[in-house]
Amino acid sequence: MACPVDEFDLIARHFDWPARHPEVSLAVGDDAALLDPPPGTRLAVSTDMLIAGRHFPLDTAPEAIAHRALAVNLSDLAAMGASPLGFTLSLGLPQTDADWLARFASQLRTGAERWGCDLIGGDTVGSPVLTLSVTVIGSLPAGKALTRGGARAGDRLAVTGHIGDAALGLALALGEESLPVLSPSAAAYLRERLDYPEPRLATGRALLPHASAALDCSDGLLQDIGHLLASSDLAAEIDIDAIPVSPAAAEWLEARPADWTRLVTGGDDYELIVALPPEVEIDPVWGLTVIGRLVDGPTGEIRDRQARTLPQRRGYTHFPASPSVDKGEDVNG
Amino acid sequence: MACPVDEFDLIARHFDWPARHPEVSLAVGDDAALLDPPPGTRLAVSTDMLIAGRHFPLDTAPEAIAHRALAVNLSDLAAMGASPLGFTLSLGLPQTDADWLARFASQLRTGAERWGCDLIGGDTVGSPVLTLSVTVIGSLPAGKALTRGGARAGDRLAVTGHIGDAALGLALALGEESLPVLSPSAAAYLRERLDYPEPRLATGRALLPHASAALDCSDGLLQDIGHLLASSDLAAEIDIDAIPVSPAAAEWLEARPADWTRLVTGGDDYELIVALPPEVEIDPVWGLTVIGRLVDGPTGEIRDRQARTLPQRRGYTHFPASPSVDKGEDVNG
Repeated sequence: MACPVDEFDLIARHFDWPARHPEVSLAVGDDAALLDPPPGTRLAVSTDMLIAGRHFPLDTAPEAIAHRALAVNLSDLAAMGASPLGFTLSLGLPQTDADWLARFASQLRTGAERWGCDLIGGDTVGSPVLTLSVTVIGSLPAGKALTRGGARAGDRLAVTGHIGDAALGLALALGEESLPVLSPSAAAYLRERLDYPEPRLATGRALLPHASAALDCSDGLLQDIGHLLASSDLAAEIDIDAIPVSPAAAEWLEARPADWTRLVTGGDDYELIVALPPEVEIDPVWGLTVIGRLVDGPTGEIRDRQARTLPQRRGYTHFPASPSVDKGEDVNG
Repeated sequence: MACPVDEFDLIARHFDWPARHPEVSLAVGDDAALLDPPPGTRLAVSTDMLIAGRHFPLDTAPEAIAHRALAVNLSDLAAMGASPLGFTLSLGLPQTDADWLARFASQLRTGAERWGCDLIGGDTVGSPVLTLSVTVIGSLPAGKALTRGGARAGDRLAVTGHIGDAALGLALALGEESLPVLSPSAAAYLRERLDYPEPRLATGRALLPHASAALDCSDGLLQDIGHLLASSDLAAEIDIDAIPVSPAAAEWLEARPADWTRLVTGGDDYELIVALPPEVEIDPVWGLTVIGRLVDGPTGEIRDRQARTLPQRRGYTHFPASPSVDKGEDVNG
């Protein structure tokens, strides 16, 4: 039921839970939050904006929206090797639906507590379209961080988890025509992976002393590898067959083998892409799969070891030059 | 001319200027920015979302939008007594107009350099309506800040600058019917005050050792005084005649004396409201005018010294309970 309420009541009712980090001296409720980081703390700051109908389908559940808004930002902290500290949320609401807000805020709190990231501020405004902007602040030991630019020729290229599930889940969510018929459990799994991405915080932290470069995979595997290559001034040789896929995605590929291009160009997986120097021994708990290696060559070039032709379009473009884009480009991270 | 471009080109072209603060170790271009604050630094964090047609008229110049997006956030830092360090910008764009972006980015850089606030990150996405979300980070000496809750009975209540110009400027911008006829210079001044609010950073910093409480005036003078009273558990006695108005606003009031209610309930002035203990001697360089004092009484009550009836509605409501609101409520800070 739509239920117009006063903004200040709204904030007080739904977004006022206690902060847990001792560094957060003052959270929601004043002109600004106050943080007192211990000496020697390096802070990592990242921001992402999500818009209904562009970054998630219009009928997405409020729980999934709340989860996503925090998860995609925390994924950026994971990619730096940082630990979450706090976040701000700007929320543009087309209407104030008390039930929607309660569900959204409850899931946001669940995520905040699970990932250890305190809500430290926000703004709620009226908007013609549901819009969320989250800024996360994380902490790192002084002088440390996993940037995109530290990789060297000879490093292995590896990814966490499985690649491509979210792109397939999106195709299902949008009801694309002539999709392969999947088992109900596989279809549900792919939708779940789209709606509830998991920031790889523990792996990012564990890799901080070991990886030479990292970023998260939000715009498409090939495109994001391209960002790492551009920052590190390298090329890459990858093995398409080595890219880890989930059993659900494998079921899809069995029906439609040519769809491997969807998996390597679709966004929203929020897995980590990391470069590992040759001397680093990979710990199984990191959950990594090696998919290739970095080489000297034309900066940004990616070639397949078996010389397969890779898709020209490597991933999501936010402002496509052509209006005839496929639906998958309406979603990014 | 609308000119669709690639997001990464767009960022590189318009939003990649060097950071100046030594604390900013890594600004735009990786998964997250990196800050290395000196030991003993307290950080203040605030965020605001602005939506075209709600927080500024649709035909507002890109320069005014860029100025406003940064200024209204910096006003929150000013109200804490903090010094700007860096900011993130999330930008939802209905189209990518190269000329618009160039003008917007140029003014943003002007503001960033003038106020000493480095752009440390951002996100640009497609959106059906122009949407901006800025998060600012400022610094304070350890243990210090001007909060809303420190005022005591007997403190003087004071404001910076002039109150109400932005509300009158908005009425002009929206072309409200039957407004008073003003001199061209007065009309231009009021529009300028709406479009180019000035964060009171120097005054905020100067008041840090002296004021007992502060906040900025963004939702309407009476409403924002109410926030201070609620946080400090006090009432206030004010003198409407003491509220400082600009010569342009005075010209308006001469034609329409009853419009004093607009001035005390209109938002967007971004002046500071401060509480000053009796022993503090007011330095003229702070630019303050005393408008009343804080008293014990029903929390949040505001009464006029001459017992004039104050407006029921004290300021802007983001989600009004009634659809029959006046146009002024579409704008807030």
